Amino acid sequence: MGKKIVIVGGVAGGATTATKLRRLDEKAEIVLFERGEFISFANCGLPYHISGVIEDRKKLLLQTVEGMNARYNLDIRNFSEVTAINRKEKTVSIKHVQTGEEYTESYDVLVLSPGAKPIVPPIEGLKSANVFTLRNIPDMDKIKAYLEDNKPKNAVVIGGGFIGLEMAENLIHAGVNVTLVEKLPQVMGPVDPELAAIVEDELRKNGVELILGDGITDVQENGTKVVLESGKILDAELIILSIGVRPENKLAADAGLDLGERGGIKVNEYLQTSDESIYAMGDAIEVTDYINGQPTMIPLAWPANRQAHIVGHHINGRKIAYPGTLGTSIVKVFELTAATTGNSEKLLRRIGIPYEVVHIHPLSHAGYYPGAEQISLKVIFDRETGKLFGAQAVGKDGVDKRIDVIATAIKGGLSVYDLQELELAYAPPFSSAKDPVNMAGYVASNIVDGIIETVQHYEVDDLIKEGAFMIDVRTEKEHAQGRIEGSKNIPLDDLRSRLDELPKDEIILITCQVGLRGYLASRILQQNGYKVKNLTGGYKTYSIFKNKIQ
Amino acid sequence: MGKKIVIVGGVAGGATTATKLRRLDEKAEIVLFERGEFISFANCGLPYHISGVIEDRKKLLLQTVEGMNARYNLDIRNFSEVTAINRKEKTVSIKHVQTGEEYTESYDVLVLSPGAKPIVPPIEGLKSANVFTLRNIPDMDKIKAYLEDNKPKNAVVIGGGFIGLEMAENLIHAGVNVTLVEKLPQVMGPVDPELAAIVEDELRKNGVELILGDGITDVQENGTKVVLESGKILDAELIILSIGVRPENKLAADAGLDLGERGGIKVNEYLQTSDESIYAMGDAIEVTDYINGQPTMIPLAWPANRQAHIVGHHINGRKIAYPGTLGTSIVKVFELTAATTGNSEKLLRRIGIPYEVVHIHPLSHAGYYPGAEQISLKVIFDRETGKLFGAQAVGKDGVDKRIDVIATAIKGGLSVYDLQELELAYAPPFSSAKDPVNMAGYVASNIVDGIIETVQHYEVDDLIKEGAFMIDVRTEKEHAQGRIEGSKNIPLDDLRSRLDELPKDEIILITCQVGLRGYLASRILQQNGYKVKNLTGGYKTYSIFKNKIQ
Ligand SMILES: Cc1cc2nc3c(=O)[nH]c(=O)nc-3n(C[C@H](O)[C@H](O)[C@H](O)COP(=O)(O)OP(=O)(O)OC[C@H]3O[C@@H](n4cnc5c(N)ncnc54)[C@H](O)[C@@H]3O)c2cc1C
Ligand SMILES: Cc1cc2nc3c(=O)[nH]c(=O)nc-3n(C[C@H](O)[C@H](O)[C@H](O)COP(=O)(O)OP(=O)(O)OC[C@H]3O[C@@H](n4cnc5c(N)ncnc54)[C@H](O)[C@@H]3O)c2cc1C
Ligand SMILES: CC(C)(COP(=O)(O)OP(=O)(O)OC[C@H]1O[C@@H](n2cnc3c(N)ncnc32)[C@H](O)[C@@H]1OP(=O)(O)O)[C@@H](O)C(=O)NCCC(=O)NCCS
Ligand SMILES: CC(C)(COP(=O)(O)OP(=O)(O)OC[C@H]1O[C@@H](n2cnc3c(N)ncnc32)[C@H](O)[C@@H]1OP(=O)(O)O)[C@@H](O)C(=O)NCCC(=O)NCCS
Repeated sequence: MGKKIVIVGGVAGGATTATKLRRLDEKAEIVLFERGEFISFANCGLPYHISGVIEDRKKLLLQTVEGMNARYNLDIRNFSEVTAINRKEKTVSIKHVQTGEEYTESYDVLVLSPGAKPIVPPIEGLKSANVFTLRNIPDMDKIKAYLEDNKPKNAVVIGGGFIGLEMAENLIHAGVNVTLVEKLPQVMGPVDPELAAIVEDELRKNGVELILGDGITDVQENGTKVVLESGKILDAELIILSIGVRPENKLAADAGLDLGERGGIKVNEYLQTSDESIYAMGDAIEVTDYINGQPTMIPLAWPANRQAHIVGHHINGRKIAYPGTLGTSIVKVFELTAATTGNSEKLLRRIGIPYEVVHIHPLSHAGYYPGAEQISLKVIFDRETGKLFGAQAVGKDGVDKRIDVIATAIKGGLSVYDLQELELAYAPPFSSAKDPVNMAGYVASNIVDGIIETVQHYEVDDLIKEGAFMIDVRTEKEHAQGRIEGSKNIPLDDLRSRLDELPKDEIILITCQVGLRGYLASRILQQNGYKVKNLTGGYKTYSIFKNKIQ
Repeated sequence: MGKKIVIVGGVAGGATTATKLRRLDEKAEIVLFERGEFISFANCGLPYHISGVIEDRKKLLLQTVEGMNARYNLDIRNFSEVTAINRKEKTVSIKHVQTGEEYTESYDVLVLSPGAKPIVPPIEGLKSANVFTLRNIPDMDKIKAYLEDNKPKNAVVIGGGFIGLEMAENLIHAGVNVTLVEKLPQVMGPVDPELAAIVEDELRKNGVELILGDGITDVQENGTKVVLESGKILDAELIILSIGVRPENKLAADAGLDLGERGGIKVNEYLQTSDESIYAMGDAIEVTDYINGQPTMIPLAWPANRQAHIVGHHINGRKIAYPGTLGTSIVKVFELTAATTGNSEKLLRRIGIPYEVVHIHPLSHAGYYPGAEQISLKVIFDRETGKLFGAQAVGKDGVDKRIDVIATAIKGGLSVYDLQELELAYAPPFSSAKDPVNMAGYVASNIVDGIIETVQHYEVDDLIKEGAFMIDVRTEKEHAQGRIEGSKNIPLDDLRSRLDELPKDEIILITCQVGLRGYLASRILQQNGYKVKNLTGGYKTYSIFKNKIQ
């Protein structure tokens, strides 16, 4: 017999560690404890079975205990909660959740992948029978049964993170009226507000009532009334609570392992805890933010799977470091896709890292080929070096591709200049001769090169109030249809002949529809001795944001 | 007045150079000559207007002469063929193609972006009125008019490159029966035959009659009979000739500029020709292959656009090197997408660079979420270092994304190990917790690490003939439905208990459906002292290839 490895948790991190360990060592003794009935299920698919988009429940159960034991020669014990780690003895205590039987099991190496649990604020009314969180198969089954038995006409989803958004969509698909309540002034915390605004529009368009900047304070009358900070009271036949998760750290804490400030288990680059024979991974740990180097928690499936690989190897003597988490994430919201990688503008601002931003609105593929859809793409980078800090995109098509390409560029240490250089696949149904990512590279490099200066959508109103002069270089028709108040219309193609209408002694702000014509105008004016700043993202980004804050 | 720059060619490279030059310098004198009527049109969209997929012809005309002159203050002269470069005088000779007027124009800097022209073999019958090539708007108009006027029932498309494939598809959409003839034993030269085979299947499924490994030798009876090398004679009411392009090098050759072996204009890393005041770009030039460093020609839109940027800057004093062309390309063929980046296996074999290959067949997104489609993904890399040489993919969904990610990884200098590390956007509608690209990284790294040895689909039959022992670790049912002749079925889950059926003294070949179970079997057997090789891509790749060669 080889090493004896005990694993706590049988889903993303735990199951993947078990199979990896077996591939590396036929002789190892591998015991996996899972508190629940199911191992290796598709957490990420849960919301979609509730609506029936994923019809077949069995599809979510990727592996069975028997199947996995047979194939990988494992000792998987479900319904088995690990209740304590006895570090001195190198044993864990187990309690069978059905029989109550308790026993201990020794380990040479212990791997913790216990995940996270939904945050439930201490509000008595949240214990009502119509209040649910969603983390695993039984949670899903309960919500589905509740829908079938009670046919609720309306639901309140509390929390606008990705699980809240997916639940809102799937409840709408299931024929339930949904009100989504989010304490922050935007949905989708990891993206910036002007991109979240596009998602918010999509939610409203699909019938979701959205209440932003308002948290719950109480739940009353058997869970049928949700009371908000604003005093508003919502009717709720069903409540989904999805305001985030907290690491499952009790075992680790009780065993005296080091925890981070927000409760994540602390690990080194090889994912060893403060006890080197205990590894931890997945939603339960604190990781390093790949961009800013600060400790953070990013409860997503990719990191858990990757970390399992690294731990499997480390246990078998091969050192692969975990370089931190970039936090690439994506969510489908009705017809839209919203995705992000790296750091957001608001995060960088909060931690005081200087950055620059570009907004562009390219088409997903050649405009002349049917089906092209506008993508709103934001790239965030270092003004001095062009180093990439992050990117966000929202649109109906091609969003995942562009974010994946930029995530790859970040992992390759590429800068905004290198984005220009990416030789991406082009034919009319797929992209343009300059892909949106190339274009973002061109636009951003011009800022790093000092060829253009920009202002952002949220700065414009104040600047104009303070007396700034702004020209809008779109056509008269476009300007007439909607404009930034106070902007003067000089269509781009007339600009060279109307220079005398412009002040030479002050900074001229320029806007157009998406930023391109404004950039062309900037180049003309700069070379004629004017000082200019172009509105990045143009009227498009401005108006999305303006609609949001009004 | 600033520098006087003369540009030859008004489409991808030429038009883009002109606008870039203007953005960089308001004062430059920029004269652009275009032989045809149209500048700045969408070459790549031409096949789609022929079928009506792109309904509106105007959509293909991205810019007009007037529009571009107005916006960019250019001097664009269409219908104007440059007939000679007089290097000593620094002038070009121009002939107006309608009026016949001839004159010269001086330049400080000359930029050549004359493109390429379709290859037409010296066969008299190809001059018949029903034979067409497709390069520009008038070509397209002629084909469309011929279709409308003559309503041909059948067409022969000669050449299975991407234009031939697009034409075959669009003619089918237009209600024409299509026979596609290709001299090579496969369509899509840049990809390897076992991936091309999937495209060939798709063509046949959609009614295209495919004749591979057979070239044309003659065209007879007014273009109505196409005679093939095999002696076969095809009826043709319409013939599309798309066997490739040759660089438009006459101007350059006459002016004594250096040309490459196959006729591409030679340029340095800043795209200067052998005369430093003359730049060249686009389809007309020879480039360096980004992977293998050898001279090549890659007539695609991305390089032309990128080179225009570099030339624009170089003329204005900023040096950006062109690092060579990777050759990322993509084509839609009915429901399928086929894409490639970097070097193919057959190219590497031909030039003698040692390589390794993995074939995988992952789903485009989580299998439990509706709409997941299998992707056939091949990654080619250096066995010693894991350096990426290229990748190819074919499938219905998510192909473009994976090839773009790998193209980005190549440009970032990443290896197969780094592919594991890419933190790509995952939610069930978009990917899996391990994206196909991650998975390719895992599978390929195992080869570099020496954890697994593989054989390829084209080696298996010979090995078995020579007496090799092969096990198929799929289920009995799968094995019964189709198998490699001579393989012995031992289902993976029984393997540990049936080791005694295997020979210890010879290499055991292993196969399964796609390679995963074969890999698991390999690990079990290796650790029990057996010598094994796994068939990469499994029965899936083997059977696709086998069907093709039969
Ligand atoms: C509804 C939903 C949708 C999601 N969608 C996405 C998505 O689209 N994309 C994405 O990247 N991520 C998504 N996630 C997140 C992803 O599922 C997690 O990040 C991932 O599963 C974390 O893996 P883990 O191994 O850390 O935890 P888990 O996969 O949760 O596994 C932990 C397991 O440990 C068990 N356990 C805990 N304590 C003990 C104990 N003491 N003894 C025995 N067993 C114990 C738990 O019962 C649990 O089964 C989603 C999550 C949910 C809930
Ligand atoms: C049908 C078709 C589909 C395509 N699809 C794709 C695709 O999906 N993806 C992709 O990447 N690429 C595609 N391409 C290739 C792409 O269009 C070319 O690579 C690109 O246009 C090359 O740019 P260029 O500037 O070198 O040449 P061009 O764009 O061809 O421009 C050259 C111009 O120069 C003019 N010219 C030549 N000689 C003279 C002269 N002596 N005087 C004046 N003018 C002159 C020509 O009339 C021509 O208009 C396609 C091409 C075709 C024809
Ligand atoms: C139409 C055509 C002349 C446009 O080329 P272009 O002038 O390079 O214009 P683009 O629309 O690509 O814009 C690129 C420029 O605008 C800038 N830009 C684009 N979007 C911007 C935005 N939202 N905000 C600010 N700047 C923006 C870019 O930085 C870049 O400028 P730079 O090179 O000075 O950095 C040229 O692409 C063409 O002729 N195409 C047709 C032919 C062809 O390519 N055929 C093959 C494919 S079918
Ligand atoms: C089901 C589960 C146990 C499978 O994990 P796994 O054992 O890592 O298996 P995978 O299918 O990912 O295969 C990966 C292994 O097979 C190899 N492989 C995959 N395809 C292969 C192919 N075609 N040929 C050869 N090898 C292949 C890979 O190299 C890798 O092996 P390595 O790590 O030793 O290099 C695990 O993913 C799981 O529990 N998932 C569900 C939970 C979850 O992730 N939830 C969150 C998302 S919903």
